[in-house]
Amino acid sequence: MSLTNRQFRLAERPVGLPKESGWNRTEEPVQQPEDGQFLVKVEYISLDPAMRGWMNEGKSYIPPVGIGEVMRALAVGKVVASKHPKFNEGDAVTGAFGVQEYAISNGEGVNRVDASLAPLPIYIGTLGMPGMTAYFGLLEVGEPKEGDTVVVSGAAGAVGTIVGQIAKIKGCRVVGIAGGKEKCDLLVNEFGFDAAIDYKADDVYKGLREHCPKGIDVYFDNVGGDILDAALANLAMGARVVICGAISQYNTTGEVKGPKNYMSLLVNRASMKGMVVMDYTKNFGKAAVEMAGWLSAGKMKSREHVVEGFDQFHDALLMLFRGENTGKLVLKVS
Amino acid sequence: MSLTNRQFRLAERPVGLPKESGWNRTEEPVQQPEDGQFLVKVEYISLDPAMRGWMNEGKSYIPPVGIGEVMRALAVGKVVASKHPKFNEGDAVTGAFGVQEYAISNGEGVNRVDASLAPLPIYIGTLGMPGMTAYFGLLEVGEPKEGDTVVVSGAAGAVGTIVGQIAKIKGCRVVGIAGGKEKCDLLVNEFGFDAAIDYKADDVYKGLREHCPKGIDVYFDNVGGDILDAALANLAMGARVVICGAISQYNTTGEVKGPKNYMSLLVNRASMKGMVVMDYTKNFGKAAVEMAGWLSAGKMKSREHVVEGFDQFHDALLMLFRGENTGKLVLKVS
Repeated sequence: MSLTNRQFRLAERPVGLPKESGWNRTEEPVQQPEDGQFLVKVEYISLDPAMRGWMNEGKSYIPPVGIGEVMRALAVGKVVASKHPKFNEGDAVTGAFGVQEYAISNGEGVNRVDASLAPLPIYIGTLGMPGMTAYFGLLEVGEPKEGDTVVVSGAAGAVGTIVGQIAKIKGCRVVGIAGGKEKCDLLVNEFGFDAAIDYKADDVYKGLREHCPKGIDVYFDNVGGDILDAALANLAMGARVVICGAISQYNTTGEVKGPKNYMSLLVNRASMKGMVVMDYTKNFGKAAVEMAGWLSAGKMKSREHVVEGFDQFHDALLMLFRGENTGKLVLKVS
Repeated sequence: MSLTNRQFRLAERPVGLPKESGWNRTEEPVQQPEDGQFLVKVEYISLDPAMRGWMNEGKSYIPPVGIGEVMRALAVGKVVASKHPKFNEGDAVTGAFGVQEYAISNGEGVNRVDASLAPLPIYIGTLGMPGMTAYFGLLEVGEPKEGDTVVVSGAAGAVGTIVGQIAKIKGCRVVGIAGGKEKCDLLVNEFGFDAAIDYKADDVYKGLREHCPKGIDVYFDNVGGDILDAALANLAMGARVVICGAISQYNTTGEVKGPKNYMSLLVNRASMKGMVVMDYTKNFGKAAVEMAGWLSAGKMKSREHVVEGFDQFHDALLMLFRGENTGKLVLKVS
């Protein structure tokens, strides 16, 4: 066995939008597992907005990817060789395998998944990190009550589509904010949102006033910037703002745009709270079971946006920041 | 009885810092109370940063003062004539009597206070709205635990001095941010703060790093702007940010400066929550008893900054925005 493992390694810390030249593409022989290890052939690599943050220097909720290291990425694949007591050849597994075709693992942070129950990409989407982010961010931090008005930005993305659908299951009125008529139509017609606002065509502030006449009870923010400000200006009394991400600000080369309407938190006795999905790992299993139940009962739909070809990694990553994906963006390795 | 009642009425909505020409100074005969009313001779008028907000058009936690109306202000005075069953001549009372020398009241929102227990200004300071703001904002919203590091901005003001002292009583490490060496010395030497940062002379971010080596557990914000950003950049895991005011932004003629470091809420799983003291009126009595106990036991000090003369209202109000007061700023009417 003399297979080659292709990799994308971080060559430099990007300023603004990542550049193709910021990656060092390497090839090395596929390693064989030692005792307590197994070898994974990666099938789908998860492309997530959070990856942009991992490329920056400095303190965050997770250490940055080091220069020269294989880019960190969640992925799903199959065990092709094992000297690990708990993982066997043929097992489908998810983990932070990185942007490479093969990964050696000792099993830490790796979960076995059932390839017969659902297509593999779902395990890095609706039943993976984005789904867990939506589930715990909305339910534990947003605390929606039946009848609440829930607004989510980045609504057509991996997290947003799930946030909206869980909120509907919980009996809320749901308004999504997304870019483009196609995405907005999909939110309403496919995912059951009550309304959608096209931030590229419409005034978000006015759209929220129109579609949330009683104000926003829960605002789930994936984007930051002007859209966060428009939401803050439309809060209901006692509103909860969940800070999950700020994709509009990740590639800024100037200062991050702070929410100038934050004093709405005072006027409306509202709270704004940050969340990191890794804090909820203990309960992932329970949530996955519940979400899988919703999926199989047809109460929730999972949508994956698959880009084919390992070589496409860089261009596919940029799709996130250009808002070109609908649903969970994944890279199919081969 | 043909006394004259002098008044400051709002003549125009200020743009930026209020101007003297924005007031309409009027004189009218003092009215006599009708059945169910009483007449108050105002002795001390409370000057509060919140007054600036009340002068603006638009939705807030309280309707704006109307053009032509007597400027809204809390005050303390004595009942000089009464046809009200519950208020008698000679009673000392607090209420929103406005910026005028005499006020007619039906008793709504008016509380009788004991002039023999404490000087009258304390009832619009430490035992009044600012004291209640500090008490409920810190204890109910900030939820400090023993050993926590509590930081308060506007620390030498009416609310800030009390926040710091209550936090000390609760066993916290307390750092104040204030303008000028004199105020900072006072915070440490007179009010028992563990440290103070002079935002006019020092780098607040670095000061917070130095004085809060484990990060900030509770940040009580009265000022907004760059200081809020410096605090956000120094939060401890699970921190609570209490949004009580934003005096640095009240007179801006441009856009309010939003906190660009708000994503620290995510990194640190922190929350930022607004508070309005009027939500806690039901429990004011209990809080006042506890605070009065701390005062009489010498655990808490109340400091009033008295400006003499009703005519000085405008200049005295501006002292707040210039940071020229230490402790509770009050206007002595005569």
